[in-house]
Amino acid sequence: MRNIFLVLSYDGTSYNGFQCQPFKNTVQDKLQEAIFKLTGDQIVVEGSGRTDAGVHARGQVVNFQTSSNIPIERWRMAINSRLPRDIIVLEAREVPLSFHARRSAKRKTYRYTISNTRVPDVFQRNYQYHHPVPLHVTEMELALQYLIGEHDFSSFCSGRSTKQSHVRTIYHAYLEREAASENPIDPSDGRCGVLHLYITGNGFLYNMVRVIAGTLIQVGEGKRTAMDMKLLLDAKDRLKAGPTAMAHGLTLWDVEYDLPAE
Amino acid sequence: MRNIFLVLSYDGTSYNGFQCQPFKNTVQDKLQEAIFKLTGDQIVVEGSGRTDAGVHARGQVVNFQTSSNIPIERWRMAINSRLPRDIIVLEAREVPLSFHARRSAKRKTYRYTISNTRVPDVFQRNYQYHHPVPLHVTEMELALQYLIGEHDFSSFCSGRSTKQSHVRTIYHAYLEREAASENPIDPSDGRCGVLHLYITGNGFLYNMVRVIAGTLIQVGEGKRTAMDMKLLLDAKDRLKAGPTAMAHGLTLWDVEYDLPAE
Repeated sequence: MRNIFLVLSYDGTSYNGFQCQPFKNTVQDKLQEAIFKLTGDQIVVEGSGRTDAGVHARGQVVNFQTSSNIPIERWRMAINSRLPRDIIVLEAREVPLSFHARRSAKRKTYRYTISNTRVPDVFQRNYQYHHPVPLHVTEMELALQYLIGEHDFSSFCSGRSTKQSHVRTIYHAYLEREAASENPIDPSDGRCGVLHLYITGNGFLYNMVRVIAGTLIQVGEGKRTAMDMKLLLDAKDRLKAGPTAMAHGLTLWDVEYDLPAE
Repeated sequence: MRNIFLVLSYDGTSYNGFQCQPFKNTVQDKLQEAIFKLTGDQIVVEGSGRTDAGVHARGQVVNFQTSSNIPIERWRMAINSRLPRDIIVLEAREVPLSFHARRSAKRKTYRYTISNTRVPDVFQRNYQYHHPVPLHVTEMELALQYLIGEHDFSSFCSGRSTKQSHVRTIYHAYLEREAASENPIDPSDGRCGVLHLYITGNGFLYNMVRVIAGTLIQVGEGKRTAMDMKLLLDAKDRLKAGPTAMAHGLTLWDVEYDLPAE
């Protein structure tokens, strides 16, 4: 048996999320179908984690075991030619049998993108949450500081979470302002343009990044203060935090492992 | 009567081009339907020019005449709320009755985008032409120099052109390399990443930018030299130039007018 590791990128717009569901159109279904067409094996891929309907991935990681003897350098193109155009394998490697995309993951990074512009950018409409109300970036940046470190994130996770512990560690959480958009002929009127929220942690709870983003937008609007972020962590109550921000602004950016260099 | 000027942005992926066609799904049809829903007037908009099926616009300009007395500052949002999500009005102004989007246009800029990367960027799949063969940018830049100025572009226009004269003036033609793509986990292997070809002129013939882009890619591949661009201008023969590059890489970037400042 061989263990194959894939990095894949997908546009989640047309899918009911990553993970297989009965009678549903998911990224995992499409990937498993492509591997079946290639190898004839009905395999099950392990993803580093789920992504919800409409959520994208720049660098989702999966692995699967196969007895196929196709050389490793052929896998990427062979799978890509059997995938729809909105899912692409970026990289294929052979890894030790002990590797498991979910259990071996050390850190994950998500990106949530807010376009704080007067008019939405038509080319980014499926990848950015358009929010035209001017946002105060400095206050948002202050708010993010409270999230860094080990905390109980019960206030920032869906009530549908089945995890026993809501304690997670956040290593980085910061905003990046995109260089002045080349796109819209768009006077800013005090808006801050395209904002990317990057957040890296040892693991994330169900809807955690989207609840953080929804709460952070309220901070940016002045409906909450930065200090509220700390009070929310202490409260451990989902009902006290902001709304779950829309799925299409979210991208699973990167998953990190301790793997030997190629 | 009032004359309304609109700047609009659209993702051309789902449309049969800009201009109305019988029984066809076009950007102009959608825009006229939206204005009809708003005003009850069956108006005809004048575009600065056509764009083909699959071609996008960042800043297409149209105008139309109406007797509606809706205040000018309401038009943008009122039309947008009646348009599909892949067409957006960026700006609405009232202009003198003499203004005509096509006849008054002074300069137009198009952008053609080539992603010279190993793996395509899934999020840009409808906006960039993916060409994985390494390209020599310096030779391409030299080739573009020959296009600047007034020339007969017969070699670079579709045989279906109905224009009497193929003489046009190109003011600028240059390549811009996008800063190292944030997207793919993609060793470049000598490829140059995302290249934007910007080309500004007093007018463009049918397929002109796409034939220039198709020929320029052959220069980049080493199948032609930069000097061939000059020889092609002299030849005035479409059959001697390169292929028409695929539509989805092309965007009508900007249309310039001599209009009084707002």
